[in-house]
Amino acid sequence: MSPTKKSLFLGSFVHCKSLDELETRHDAAVFVDEHGVIVAIEQDMDLQRAKDTLIPQMGWVEGEYAVHMAKKGEFFFPGFIDTHIHAPQFPNAGIFGKSTLLDWLLKYTFPMESSLANLSKAQMVYNRCVKRTLSHGTTTASYYATIHVPATNLLADLCLSIGQRAFIGRCCMDSDMSPDTYRDESPQQAIEATKATISHISSIDPSYSLVSPILTPRFAPSCSSELMTSLGALHKETDLPIQTHISENVGELALVKQLFPDIKDYTSVYDSFSLLTRKTILAHAIHLSDDEIALIKERKAKISHCPCSNSSITSGTCKVRQLLDNGIDIGLGTDMSGGYSPSILEALRQAVLVSRHVAMGGDDNTKLSIEEVLYLATRGGAKVVNLEDKIGGFDVGKEWDAQLIGFGADISDEEGATDEINQMDESPVDMFGWETWDDRIAKWVYNGDDRNTLAVWVKGRLVHEIRK
Amino acid sequence: MSPTKKSLFLGSFVHCKSLDELETRHDAAVFVDEHGVIVAIEQDMDLQRAKDTLIPQMGWVEGEYAVHMAKKGEFFFPGFIDTHIHAPQFPNAGIFGKSTLLDWLLKYTFPMESSLANLSKAQMVYNRCVKRTLSHGTTTASYYATIHVPATNLLADLCLSIGQRAFIGRCCMDSDMSPDTYRDESPQQAIEATKATISHISSIDPSYSLVSPILTPRFAPSCSSELMTSLGALHKETDLPIQTHISENVGELALVKQLFPDIKDYTSVYDSFSLLTRKTILAHAIHLSDDEIALIKERKAKISHCPCSNSSITSGTCKVRQLLDNGIDIGLGTDMSGGYSPSILEALRQAVLVSRHVAMGGDDNTKLSIEEVLYLATRGGAKVVNLEDKIGGFDVGKEWDAQLIGFGADISDEEGATDEINQMDESPVDMFGWETWDDRIAKWVYNGDDRNTLAVWVKGRLVHEIRK
Repeated sequence: MSPTKKSLFLGSFVHCKSLDELETRHDAAVFVDEHGVIVAIEQDMDLQRAKDTLIPQMGWVEGEYAVHMAKKGEFFFPGFIDTHIHAPQFPNAGIFGKSTLLDWLLKYTFPMESSLANLSKAQMVYNRCVKRTLSHGTTTASYYATIHVPATNLLADLCLSIGQRAFIGRCCMDSDMSPDTYRDESPQQAIEATKATISHISSIDPSYSLVSPILTPRFAPSCSSELMTSLGALHKETDLPIQTHISENVGELALVKQLFPDIKDYTSVYDSFSLLTRKTILAHAIHLSDDEIALIKERKAKISHCPCSNSSITSGTCKVRQLLDNGIDIGLGTDMSGGYSPSILEALRQAVLVSRHVAMGGDDNTKLSIEEVLYLATRGGAKVVNLEDKIGGFDVGKEWDAQLIGFGADISDEEGATDEINQMDESPVDMFGWETWDDRIAKWVYNGDDRNTLAVWVKGRLVHEIRK
Repeated sequence: MSPTKKSLFLGSFVHCKSLDELETRHDAAVFVDEHGVIVAIEQDMDLQRAKDTLIPQMGWVEGEYAVHMAKKGEFFFPGFIDTHIHAPQFPNAGIFGKSTLLDWLLKYTFPMESSLANLSKAQMVYNRCVKRTLSHGTTTASYYATIHVPATNLLADLCLSIGQRAFIGRCCMDSDMSPDTYRDESPQQAIEATKATISHISSIDPSYSLVSPILTPRFAPSCSSELMTSLGALHKETDLPIQTHISENVGELALVKQLFPDIKDYTSVYDSFSLLTRKTILAHAIHLSDDEIALIKERKAKISHCPCSNSSITSGTCKVRQLLDNGIDIGLGTDMSGGYSPSILEALRQAVLVSRHVAMGGDDNTKLSIEEVLYLATRGGAKVVNLEDKIGGFDVGKEWDAQLIGFGADISDEEGATDEINQMDESPVDMFGWETWDDRIAKWVYNGDDRNTLAVWVKGRLVHEIRK
């Protein structure tokens, strides 16, 4: 991996201006300093002009900065933010049969997670998970790990060394909903173990500049009231973020009602333990009542929309438009391996499709546009992880978390067009050369994959590049 | 492209035994003769045993036959059958905005199709479409072309020369539903043009051994009654197959009711023009009544399920389980570019997900399994195109339409597992080495793509191979 150095990026830049508007800049330049921070964005700029103007003004010295140029048709795009992903479930991606949440947990998920007590297995799984998600353009991930402290610490180490921005959550789960062989022994032990991972992360990245702990009560049914009370107190003490699941599956709803009979609804369960805050990420949020939506809004809690997972394990359809209209911050999550794919590009594609399934119910307004799902995957996700001042778009003062997107040569640029079979390998998306920029982006969203993510930077560091 | 020669295939073979059962053979051998026909399938066979036993018995001579070995973890699978795809819409894959069927046709589809009157554009688009779909493992495609005879003939020429099994349909569309600039002038002209393409295909492939014409009334709203009557008569005369669209979108249903007020329902429209036969492929079939399902069953007409398209342009959800339970033959279609993807692997993934959206309505039995969608994509599709005696599975007497599926090296086979970043490029699917065969297939279905389709054969000819 490259060290961070001053960098000049030249070419086309696309990012989300607002929920429903993309901004595309051509012939632009973005200057990133040695801390990975964007210090200038200029229009009508090429390398020579940059060398004649801003570079000397800023005191940059030849040889001390890198230059990255997007070729014609390529563009820089903000890195994706995965607001909900289970790193230890990576080997199970695609393996779920016809299961639904509660049997899926017991049959596939707990056995795999439990097996990561073995550190060499954890090393193998987490190493590949981090590299694979980076290759898909995920520059920030909010990870659930397992209950194991050493393996969770290892995940933090790997994110820091490989260079992925990450929230690392040791799973807290002490109730008998989880198997004997895979659960916290007591609320005290769960809190101690959680503090051990916080302490480790503080030792490797003291300012949480790249890797941060996140408090992770797995979900209400797997946590005792005592554990949730302690986690609420720990949040108050540390102001660390929180992540959990909410209202994913109807069987789960019934279980919550049974376990917490005196509490009004699922959202109020978390609220009653001081776990519903502006720093809480709630994954799924499918079957919420209007009262619950109002409470989430009041607490400024965030929602992670996980369409791949919600469809795969037949959980239901999240009503994204309704949540957006209520002013709630929403991002996208792969929820791998409830979701089958580690790719946020796949998640945003499924977010579009699921919104059309919601629209089949009669309300056309629920359809999400390409602009909207790209927003959810970048600026929306940044808000969900409370990093909207640092990441999510190309603005002066933000950090350079970005991906370079390309499609190989356009077909109609070629001589003949009959011998281009080799070029097909470079990109799953066929560009003919007559597409508008909007069309190029649509084609990327629907048919693109990691082959189109040519390079990835986090905080100014080059952390992934496709070998040529 | 390689010529057809005798071939011996060795290793693991997977195909569908029945709707809900896969059959996996290891250490097996499939012997394919110079006509592309499977002449023997043997268990417990390696190259030496084959040379010692069957090869001399069959009189095969060293040097006159090719040997293809699947490596450990790789397997041969039957080629996919795309029962509904629009070749001229290939450049629009992924471009549909928030449109639904009728505005989508006018805004995106007719302008693109109309432009393929230009033969050099048609050459560029069709060449790439055939090569791209082959790279996704589509060994048979039922194509809609445009109204243009030369461009339609060109598509047939390309399929024959590149080596894809195909049905080629010149679109018949003479009603004023289509724009002045893109429609048949009269029923007579439409029939003459159709006969011209039939005549051309008969001249290049007299026995329709690889490429066959297919009668293609685009859909009822775009055809006059006179045209449909003539096409029904042409079918009776020639016994050529028929393809059209049915019951895709509620606006379309209203239009059909308005255009054919005296006919009971949409299905009866086709039936009344003798277009509903055992050789008819009906695409979409979303909003059918019980009477329509009964009529389709009675006529033994076939259905092409197009989940990507049905979700993308918000058409609705096809009730596949209900159709299967009624004994109707169903296959999968990409319906590109109503569907955003040219890949049947993507279509079968979406068929699984859409079946879960249907199940969210309350009936868990509607969920499709991996086995079932693989069946739809192979043996199911073969029935839909009336080629079940020739393709769809690995049986003696069938032709060798197949793909070799692989995943690169398993992670846990490697030394260390920290330096495997290069191997990531070979496959989007991460195999750790402990997966069962069922798990390997599930991981392929959910996260695989054309990178996993290492080689493709049609009728014994190698027609696609990933360059190393």
